[in-house]
Amino acid sequence: MSWLRSAFQDELDGVTQTLVDLSALVSDAITRATHALLTADIKEAEEVIASDDRVDDIQHELDARIIDIIARQQPVASDLRALVTALRMSADLERMGDMAHHIAKITRLRHPNAAVPSELLLTIEEMGKVARLISDKVGGVINSRDVEKAMEVEKDDDEMDKLHRKLFTTLLDDKWSHGTETAIDITLIGRYYERYADHAVSVARRVYFLVTGKFSK
Amino acid sequence: MSWLRSAFQDELDGVTQTLVDLSALVSDAITRATHALLTADIKEAEEVIASDDRVDDIQHELDARIIDIIARQQPVASDLRALVTALRMSADLERMGDMAHHIAKITRLRHPNAAVPSELLLTIEEMGKVARLISDKVGGVINSRDVEKAMEVEKDDDEMDKLHRKLFTTLLDDKWSHGTETAIDITLIGRYYERYADHAVSVARRVYFLVTGKFSK
Repeated sequence: MSWLRSAFQDELDGVTQTLVDLSALVSDAITRATHALLTADIKEAEEVIASDDRVDDIQHELDARIIDIIARQQPVASDLRALVTALRMSADLERMGDMAHHIAKITRLRHPNAAVPSELLLTIEEMGKVARLISDKVGGVINSRDVEKAMEVEKDDDEMDKLHRKLFTTLLDDKWSHGTETAIDITLIGRYYERYADHAVSVARRVYFLVTGKFSK
Repeated sequence: MSWLRSAFQDELDGVTQTLVDLSALVSDAITRATHALLTADIKEAEEVIASDDRVDDIQHELDARIIDIIARQQPVASDLRALVTALRMSADLERMGDMAHHIAKITRLRHPNAAVPSELLLTIEEMGKVARLISDKVGGVINSRDVEKAMEVEKDDDEMDKLHRKLFTTLLDDKWSHGTETAIDITLIGRYYERYADHAVSVARRVYFLVTGKFSK
């Protein structure tokens, strides 16, 4: 019954495609959230906040579809593992969307003021770039199952951690003159970028495990 | 073949029991992490940090068991939904363990100093109590599937949000004299308690949905 197997394969491919679509959406969201944050652009921040509902809707639809495929096709072994892993990846991607949303909300909260003082603009801009790079790469990895690329994501995350530490170094410098409110904002913003990258690493590790059967570290 | 059905039921009950065990473990972890934080007790903090591995191990074993049950029993409809929901609950509970672990790491980082200044001890103590209450309740809800109790967790979370806002009010008060480092610590600590409660709410909502087929809000 090769046509049955093939219909099932089509369904798995559809799941993969939706995960790739989700990673493109969150990549776009973090890029625009960063831009809005750095330029205190309330319109763009509002757009990011509104667009998160779409990510949530797609994730809910995808999860229902995956459970339906498991119920109908009763896959075992590697196919079942791939579907369960897809459920977990969709949860990671949804959380990445939430992080972009949280960043946009800080922009909105401080508007018309800028949440980020000028001496931190470059670091945050870098964090946004690394975040985008990571989620773009993760989208590619979900599609290609390229384990080499999956392992690169860990290195990109090290870069994010370095930027995160740099943020704290600036906050803790004696010259810090922006008060506690800005320190709180920057602490949370830093945490959101870090978590965004952590979830991307989690997706990359899941792909690595699916392909190799081993944990990547 | 009622004995088959019954063996399957035993397996589902085993999954439920492990989820209850996990909620007891994280409840204990957040209680001890709070105590260590408030008393700058490095020994207790180290114990919380070490015990998180056990939560992770139990979660990994549980997830493998759930996938194995799905593969062997090929459940459909409500049984499949219950098992997929159990996977998600175990992820939430594991993250709750991580939050206790993060709090303990701040205690260790600042030792022998206290991370929490005296005027915030009571608020953090309250957050720890609410966190414990919520996860104890969630353990009960997983076991009983009591939807009334599941809905109570939302109210407990409102209490956590109130305490979280109180933390920020103190940080932003003109009288704040503990500098930026402590402000950063308190911001992160507040976020960890808030996320702990959020994950507990997520578990409660999943139980609510499993029982009623409706979202709780």
